[in-house]
Amino acid sequence: MAENRSRPAIGRRPGETQTRGAILEAAECRFAEAGYAASLRSIARDAGVDPALIGHFFGSKAGLFIAAVRWPIDPAETLDVVLSRGPENAGSQLAAMFLRHWGEAENRSPILALIAAAQADAEAALLLRRFLLDRNLLPILEALGSDRRPLRAGLISGQLAGLGLSRYVYGMINPDEYSEEEIAKCVAPVLQHYLTESLE
Amino acid sequence: MAENRSRPAIGRRPGETQTRGAILEAAECRFAEAGYAASLRSIARDAGVDPALIGHFFGSKAGLFIAAVRWPIDPAETLDVVLSRGPENAGSQLAAMFLRHWGEAENRSPILALIAAAQADAEAALLLRRFLLDRNLLPILEALGSDRRPLRAGLISGQLAGLGLSRYVYGMINPDEYSEEEIAKCVAPVLQHYLTESLE
Repeated sequence: MAENRSRPAIGRRPGETQTRGAILEAAECRFAEAGYAASLRSIARDAGVDPALIGHFFGSKAGLFIAAVRWPIDPAETLDVVLSRGPENAGSQLAAMFLRHWGEAENRSPILALIAAAQADAEAALLLRRFLLDRNLLPILEALGSDRRPLRAGLISGQLAGLGLSRYVYGMINPDEYSEEEIAKCVAPVLQHYLTESLE
Repeated sequence: MAENRSRPAIGRRPGETQTRGAILEAAECRFAEAGYAASLRSIARDAGVDPALIGHFFGSKAGLFIAAVRWPIDPAETLDVVLSRGPENAGSQLAAMFLRHWGEAENRSPILALIAAAQADAEAALLLRRFLLDRNLLPILEALGSDRRPLRAGLISGQLAGLGLSRYVYGMINPDEYSEEEIAKCVAPVLQHYLTESLE
């Protein structure tokens, strides 16, 4: 995701970097228009490259999607914010940060696109899962010294996905009726439970 | 949902009941095959009726979908089970019941279809929301004497939707790795919080 783009092109010829960039740019537009259903053929055509090059650079459609539609929040920032007020406030920090980011349409839009792709395609689900777990939630749980980290990471991502979908897709928690601060207060003890408390 | 089907056809001529039944039967097949994208034209053709009759009986595509793809659990059963061990065990009862039902593919499949329709169409989301809130969660919260019931119902449905999707769609909580009992134990205090504890 974020890191895929800025990965230094060591060992690559300049032409390769340009081709990869052209594919990414075309993919961003096409995926924004048509979601995961956008065709690789149309992306290759827009980028002016042979469709086989997409496989060469990104492995698969899911790989290209995850590289083009990036998670909008830097994992290092998430870690810093969640830990900044001590382990006992990690839940409320995560709740507030999550709701603040989902509240901004320019963040919400790629997150919803990634969730939709994960629902449509098992490989996209796997890549998103790896990013959210390995890069985001497991480092937080490790820093907190929590046990059963993969289970906790799954429970947290489930709570957050359901909260975001309820608020912005299913309409169960109306953003006009309940402020981010109000919902964060309700969800903070739940996230604290999943982050640090005993699951026995 | 469940009740739409068995609604007594008082004041209707027998031909109307049969037509309605034929539309529902055709809709069940088509929606099972193609999801919410199934066309009303194809359903009317299978049922041997004029497409306009779908509007007459079900109001809209969303109305037909919600009537044909029924929520697999009777609201009265949910209420009984959740309250059967006292208010202090409502969270663990709801968690166990939810995970048991999602564990059965024949229940999970209509639930996932309803969630997908709610993501695709605002009217389907509204109808599903009304059913889940008005018929399922609000009566439980009323019986428990909880305050802020619409907010609590939204938080509970978000947690449960996210949990089900994480377990069976996103692959964040692998059913082969974590048993229903194990996950129910982790989620029970969270549901108890949303059901009865102070949200201040």
